[in-house]
This record gives sequence, C-alpha cells and structure tokens, in this order.
Amino acid sequence: MPEAVLKRAASDMLDWHGSGMSVMEMSHRGKEFGAICAEAEADFRALMAVPEEFQVLFMQGGGLGENAIVPLNLSQGRTVDFIVTGSWSSKSLKEAQRYCEARLAATNAPSDYTRMPAPSSWELSTDAAYVHLCSNETIHGVEFQELPDLKALGSRAPLVIDFSSHVASRPVDWSKVGLAFGGAQKNLGPAGLTIVVVRNELLGHALDICPSAFNYKTVADNGSMYNTPPTWAIYVAGLTFKWLLQQTEGALSGIAAMEHRNIAKSSLLYDFIDSSSLYSNKVAVDCRSRMNIPFFLGDESLNDAFLAGAREAGLLQLKGHKSVGGMRASIYNAMPLAGVQALVAYMREFERSRA
Amino acid sequence: MPEAVLKRAASDMLDWHGSGMSVMEMSHRGKEFGAICAEAEADFRALMAVPEEFQVLFMQGGGLGENAIVPLNLSQGRTVDFIVTGSWSSKSLKEAQRYCEARLAATNAPSDYTRMPAPSSWELSTDAAYVHLCSNETIHGVEFQELPDLKALGSRAPLVIDFSSHVASRPVDWSKVGLAFGGAQKNLGPAGLTIVVVRNELLGHALDICPSAFNYKTVADNGSMYNTPPTWAIYVAGLTFKWLLQQTEGALSGIAAMEHRNIAKSSLLYDFIDSSSLYSNKVAVDCRSRMNIPFFLGDESLNDAFLAGAREAGLLQLKGHKSVGGMRASIYNAMPLAGVQALVAYMREFERSRA
Repeated sequence: MPEAVLKRAASDMLDWHGSGMSVMEMSHRGKEFGAICAEAEADFRALMAVPEEFQVLFMQGGGLGENAIVPLNLSQGRTVDFIVTGSWSSKSLKEAQRYCEARLAATNAPSDYTRMPAPSSWELSTDAAYVHLCSNETIHGVEFQELPDLKALGSRAPLVIDFSSHVASRPVDWSKVGLAFGGAQKNLGPAGLTIVVVRNELLGHALDICPSAFNYKTVADNGSMYNTPPTWAIYVAGLTFKWLLQQTEGALSGIAAMEHRNIAKSSLLYDFIDSSSLYSNKVAVDCRSRMNIPFFLGDESLNDAFLAGAREAGLLQLKGHKSVGGMRASIYNAMPLAGVQALVAYMREFERSRA
Repeated sequence: MPEAVLKRAASDMLDWHGSGMSVMEMSHRGKEFGAICAEAEADFRALMAVPEEFQVLFMQGGGLGENAIVPLNLSQGRTVDFIVTGSWSSKSLKEAQRYCEARLAATNAPSDYTRMPAPSSWELSTDAAYVHLCSNETIHGVEFQELPDLKALGSRAPLVIDFSSHVASRPVDWSKVGLAFGGAQKNLGPAGLTIVVVRNELLGHALDICPSAFNYKTVADNGSMYNTPPTWAIYVAGLTFKWLLQQTEGALSGIAAMEHRNIAKSSLLYDFIDSSSLYSNKVAVDCRSRMNIPFFLGDESLNDAFLAGAREAGLLQLKGHKSVGGMRASIYNAMPLAGVQALVAYMREFERSRA
C-alpha cells in the first residue's frame, strides 16, 4: 500500500478530522462516516470514470463470495456462459453451478492457461443471463488486454468481469460491461471490502434464496448500509482512491498515469526475461498480465538458491503458486518502478553468477 | 474502542513488529498474519472460555449476513424455532423463511417487547433443526440474563444465539449453546468482522445452495482462510481481546471484570432512572439490558432540549431508535463508568432545572 496512505491512516487513528473519534468508532449511520463513504464513492467514480447508469456498492465477502452472489442476483436460474482462462474463472464456474446452468463457453483448460481462447472461437449461448470472465488471472498471469464486445460476437447478454486483481491498474471500457466486482486487497486497500459496479437495469432480479445482505438491490437502495459496512476498509480505500487520483506520469494523471507506470514496470521485467537464457515466461505475448508475472528458471535445481538470495536482497513473496511452480512477481499498483528495477538487477546478477 | 488499542494500531501502522509491513499489506497466507490470526483466536478462546469442541470462525457479512448463513448451514430445510424478543430476532425469523420452515415459538411481539416470554411458555417443536434467539436486543433494550436450558424445556435442538451486541460483556454458558454469532463492531473491534463459535458436530450439514465462502465447514477446514479474511479487523479485534484479558476489577479479571463493570454502569443508570420523576424505562427489571438502555422523558416536548444540552456536555448518540422514540444510552464495554456518571449528572441537572 502507498506509504502516504498508511501515514495518514496512522495520524487519523485517534481523532479523525477533529471529530474526537477514530473511524473505527464511528456509527456507520452518523454524519462523519456518511461523509467518508460518500467521498470514497465519488472518488472511485471519478478515478474509474464510472458512468451514471452504474451503482457502486461497498460489500463484504470478497471475490469468492461474489462467485455465489453474482449468480444469486443475476442468473435468474437461466444459462450463464463462462470463459475459463485460469484458476479464478474456473472456481467461479464451479460455484455458479449451485444456482444456474453454468456453461463452459470457451477455455484453454486445463493444459494451456498460457493464452486466451480467441473471442471469435467462443461458443456463446443465444439466451445467457450473462457472460462471466476474469479479466486478470493471478496464478497463471494472463490478462485481457481488451474486453470483448459481446454484441459483436452475437450475444445480447451483459458481461460480468472479476477485476479483483487488476482493478485501478488500467481503464475499464464500461460500455462493454454489465457488472464488475473485485476484492479491494490487491490494488485498493485492506482485505474485507468488495467493490461491485453494476448497471441499474441488472438490479431487482435476484433469486428468492439470495441473502438480503447480498442482494444488490437491497444494498443499492440502502446506500451500501443495509448491514454495517466494513467502515475502516472503506475509509482506507478512500485514501487510496485519492492517492491514485493524485498520481502523475508526465501529462497523464490518475488511472492513465497508473496504466503508463504499469506498462513500464511490466515491460521492464518481461523484456529482461525474454532476453535472458536462464528465465522464461510461457504466456503468449498478447495475453501477458501487467500485475502477475510467473517465470521459470531453466534449471529448476537453482530455485531454492534464487529464492534465498532474493530474500537476502529484500525481494519477498517471489515463490510461484504451488499449482504452477516456478516463480511469480506480483507487481501491483503500489509497487514502484524502482522495486521492479531492483528485481531485474538481482535476476541479472543471479544469472551472471551461475553462468 | 479502548484508547490503548487505537494507540497500538497507530504505532504499528507502517511496520508491524519489525516486519517492514503494515498489517494491511500482509498476505493472509504469510507467516506474520498467520501468527496474528492464531493469537487472536487463542486469546478469544481464553477470554470467552470457549470449549475445545467448538470452532471459532472469523467471517464476513455481519449479523444480517448470518441471518441467512445460519439457516443455510444448520436448518437442513427442516423446522427452526424462533424466540422473537425485538427487532433483531424478528429480522432473523423473516430472513430464515427463505431456507426453512421458520416458526415463531415464542414472542411478546409486537405490542410488548419490554419483557421476555417466560421459557416455560415457549412452544418448542419436537424436531426443530435449531432454536434461535437474540441474547441482547439493542433497540428495545432487553437481554437474556440467563440462557434457556433447552433440554429442560423438552427440546433436543441446539441453541443458536445472536450475541452481536453484548459479546464479551458477560460470560457465556457454552453448555447450553450450539452456535453463537456476532458482528465485532459493538464490543470487539471494527466493523467487517463476524465471529462464529460453532460446535464441531454442527458442521457439514449445509444446504447445496450455501455459498462456499459462507459454508462453516469450508471456513473451518481452511482456518478461516478459504477466502481472504478481513485481516485488519482480525488484528484490531485481537488487540481488543488482549485489552479485555488485562482488565481487572478487584480480584476479578477478563470477562468477569467486564461483567462486574457492566453491572455497575447499568445499575447506576437504571437506579437513577427508577428514582427519577422525569425519566422512565419500561423494560421489566429482570429483562433489562446492560448494554442498551432506552428511556423516556415524561414530558416529550423536552426531548429536543434534552438532546441539545447533552450534545453541549459532550454526551453523544442519545437519541432513541426511530421505531421506539425517546432516548437510548448504549454503554458498551469500552464506555468507562465515568462516562455513565457524567450522563447521570447531566440527567439529574436537566431534571432539576426543569422542575
């Protein structure tokens, strides 16, 4: 998380803006927290250019919770098309089967999660309630560089995207989206807050078995305060939105600046990996994630030495997910370019010393 | 919240125990957060004397979420008996009707939420999946001074208690309980954390439509880390558990000390109200809540002046819930005796000046 956000949270801890209260002590229905929440929503809308016809909901339950909450609200028990491009979308499909006819419309699973199935090859239903995809898969390191235009593919269904792991790292083309959801913990703030952005027209169709606390219409009608919201997480996410709005790269600002920075960070690492004879990344170039970069050492017996040296150099959490092995660099928004430069310098020196 | 807890949270903000990370930046699967979570659970178990045959789960969704999550996990679609003693248990009954035969077994609703129906009058089913009650009702200010012994009442069903609003204010007789749930925001920490204490034997009976993220067995099998838990809220709740364990009143410590203090605080206010000719509390003496004390001014035209004067004296949030009117003092664990003394002093002076 940005250091400026943490410092502000620490200095506000006992007394938020002279209120005499910590944010953690505020009633969620009081005017102080009401102001914090309204400002967080306005800043998120400005940051992400969310159009008026969408609601922004602050919820609980995380991405895994949404795997059930989305079909409970949107499926109407009908067919739902899933694009499965890695572990997360695979889990979403499995969970949705509790509530609807969840259908595999396209995948390269399980053997080849290193590229996306081309949209032209997707077998979309004529009458799906919605189409689900995960726009960035953290474990396999694949990312949609552009969202599909479902209308152009012959589907009238709204598109649902799980953007948990790359929200606020790049713009979203809302004209192509019906609903987007994401846990806040990667790019936006502390764990325990889920942000749902949903078109007004998709509200009000929940199944009877949808819990009230997770019914989008109930949450929207109550300004995200039907049940007590995760107040502290909303406050810290709000500080992060302000930090993101203030970021600049040359003439760019906000999300455009973040995207520029994320392209620079990820290109630096991919270019080095591609030029190396020790390291490799198996993902097709046009499907590579800017957030999560898995890579492998040509000689896997060097893995332990690589990780031990990295730890000594202060480079943490580089071990790949157990389901794919190797290494993985997760370079979310708060990671500065200098952090990636340090990683590349270490990787270059490690390779040289082993040559 | 206790000032000591807030100060500690502020000083740990940028660097928890020399880890170089804020708690908000930790991976929930890393060893640092694993230690924080394990210590929080151990401290909660020690504080509340939770027996080994119960799981302690850290979840999301709050009390209103649990109104659906409990029947999804425990009802097996069978009859469930509800004891309705105020707004919260009434909401729980209504939500459960989505998932099971939710049955009103006892109530004084809607005219007389000022006392509990005597357990001897409860019409319990012979085959209920469980019996639900809310052990403290915040709006009406009624509290179970003792949990019912369902076996003695002829029911073999496990007892489910919603103890959101008085958890950690008094001991729990776990021998009478099958499951207890509570949002953390009243007595235990920041909003966004729900604590569920559940007997092992009640796990594994969820309905197929129960979302995985809210399936108690899935949550228990994964040590509350099936989905990313609300890490910061768990950390702050853990600090609060330590603060509670350290509290003493004479020879008493921990929950026994808190109970002693809560009796002293609530008795001071109730005794004053009962001795006054301006103020009144309508709740039967043996059903009065130690946490939430609604009261009325004999002349309701004085309400605005009472609230304005209270605000000037720094006594906040005294307006009663809109569904009952009048005033309400919520004197949770973190409110010191001095706070109640200040309230009584103000009320006495207000009465004197209007006499």
